[in-house]
Amino acid sequence: MASRLTLSPEVRVVVWTGEGEPPEGIEDVEFFVGAYMGVPLDESAVRRMPALRVIQLFSAGVEPWLPVVPDGVTLCNGRGVHGGSTAELAVAGLLSLLRRLPHYRDEQQARRWSPSRAEDLDGKRVLVLGAGDIGRRIAAAVGVFNAECTFVARTAREDVRAISELPDLLPEYDIVVVSLPHTESTHHLVDAQFLAALPDDAILVNIARGPIVDTDALVAELQAGRLSAFLDVTDPEPLPEDHPLWRAGNVLITPHVGGGTTGWQRRGDRLIGDQIARFVAGQDLSNVIGDGY
Amino acid sequence: MASRLTLSPEVRVVVWTGEGEPPEGIEDVEFFVGAYMGVPLDESAVRRMPALRVIQLFSAGVEPWLPVVPDGVTLCNGRGVHGGSTAELAVAGLLSLLRRLPHYRDEQQARRWSPSRAEDLDGKRVLVLGAGDIGRRIAAAVGVFNAECTFVARTAREDVRAISELPDLLPEYDIVVVSLPHTESTHHLVDAQFLAALPDDAILVNIARGPIVDTDALVAELQAGRLSAFLDVTDPEPLPEDHPLWRAGNVLITPHVGGGTTGWQRRGDRLIGDQIARFVAGQDLSNVIGDGY
Repeated sequence: MASRLTLSPEVRVVVWTGEGEPPEGIEDVEFFVGAYMGVPLDESAVRRMPALRVIQLFSAGVEPWLPVVPDGVTLCNGRGVHGGSTAELAVAGLLSLLRRLPHYRDEQQARRWSPSRAEDLDGKRVLVLGAGDIGRRIAAAVGVFNAECTFVARTAREDVRAISELPDLLPEYDIVVVSLPHTESTHHLVDAQFLAALPDDAILVNIARGPIVDTDALVAELQAGRLSAFLDVTDPEPLPEDHPLWRAGNVLITPHVGGGTTGWQRRGDRLIGDQIARFVAGQDLSNVIGDGY
Repeated sequence: MASRLTLSPEVRVVVWTGEGEPPEGIEDVEFFVGAYMGVPLDESAVRRMPALRVIQLFSAGVEPWLPVVPDGVTLCNGRGVHGGSTAELAVAGLLSLLRRLPHYRDEQQARRWSPSRAEDLDGKRVLVLGAGDIGRRIAAAVGVFNAECTFVARTAREDVRAISELPDLLPEYDIVVVSLPHTESTHHLVDAQFLAALPDDAILVNIARGPIVDTDALVAELQAGRLSAFLDVTDPEPLPEDHPLWRAGNVLITPHVGGGTTGWQRRGDRLIGDQIARFVAGQDLSNVIGDGY
């Protein structure tokens, strides 16, 4: 980590995974950076850092860390580190489906030049479930090509409709992008009834979490040829070799790679570097989740 | 055409292809709409419309029509009708290459869930050759994902660098998008020397015209695995079955379908409807190429 960051010379870096005997200087650590996809520290590890003032994570989700953050310690998440990359994949997959790139790849493999007419985004109505960073970026990108986005979230607010309005909204949209956290209330939100409410030839994009979609219901719609889908996440995951979703119709599947690009490391380093610089300068930090949980 | 347009009741529509005996009322025609990809009228056909004041085309290029536009008749092109769709395909193909969607499609066909790390647009430097509508839209879309664009055109102006600066510019860019008209001066602009100046792993996107790129030089770079490419246009075109470009390495080829989407018809109808409404109201027309060629 240190080798990729430009840190002020007064910053001393101590590396510890939280396991085994802590290194020298651990008692002076004020700013702790959790490894991406790493296991949260346990309480005894946190107690080895009595000078601790900040825990900075790379992930957007912070739930596993909440129980171990001591009173008076600031917890910051990685908002923005993965979102751009995930939104980008959503747009890549959506445009691929619309412009028939998987079809043309097959044609290329067969060395056939066979133009055909495809759809494009112009005038398309896009419903984005989730009004966070990812959804906003998707809206900005498709807006360049004259698609109109409507946001949906748990509760309505200024430019956001409520999930409870979905039955009225769904028949009016050509494209639905799922960009919600997976919670009890979003589990199987996209079920047979949800899908049936979409117009013919609608496109479903899921770059959030697999279990938000009822896979069996989606497979049925895909096999019927009524809908198409781009899925970066599935349920189950990894998708077993014999699962019918692989070839259920007009579906493009990527193996949960929305956030896992080379770019997130650069963004992560930028965030950590900025946060440490702010901390050293005594400025307010970004991405603060809460103080003293 | 008339059935898809909403025209003021005072507008009378006469349909004529320019061949055979012209229909009744041809002598009253003031506003002529050329069919997309249609053959230009010949001079004798134009003379059958003495009341003619406007010729409106769907295409951006107007060259074949210039010789037959009578003095005092305004020629308007279809700028904006195809550009959005072409820019969209450029972004679709570029994102597909970056995010390895052709690879994941093969994996899907083999029913294999095998995540790997890909590039993304964050921090990428994009050189757009051509500062027209298409290039601007591409820049707007990739800008959403933190890529930075520089425009290049024949002559430098405020935010546009000159083609003569390319030797200095090329080594600094990760992605080059060709969006120039094909003229004598752009023929084989992208030759062996141009490609050699690009850094390793750079991506070439051509959504303009095939002969702007020296195909043999590109094939050599692709076969060497040094560059990758998304090509909607090739030279020759259609690409023959036995051409080495089909499988020259990391290349994605679509058969010149940038502008040919369902959306262009909607945009074309919108343009024609707007132009006729302006003409009826005595307002200035858009997309005027020139008066009285």
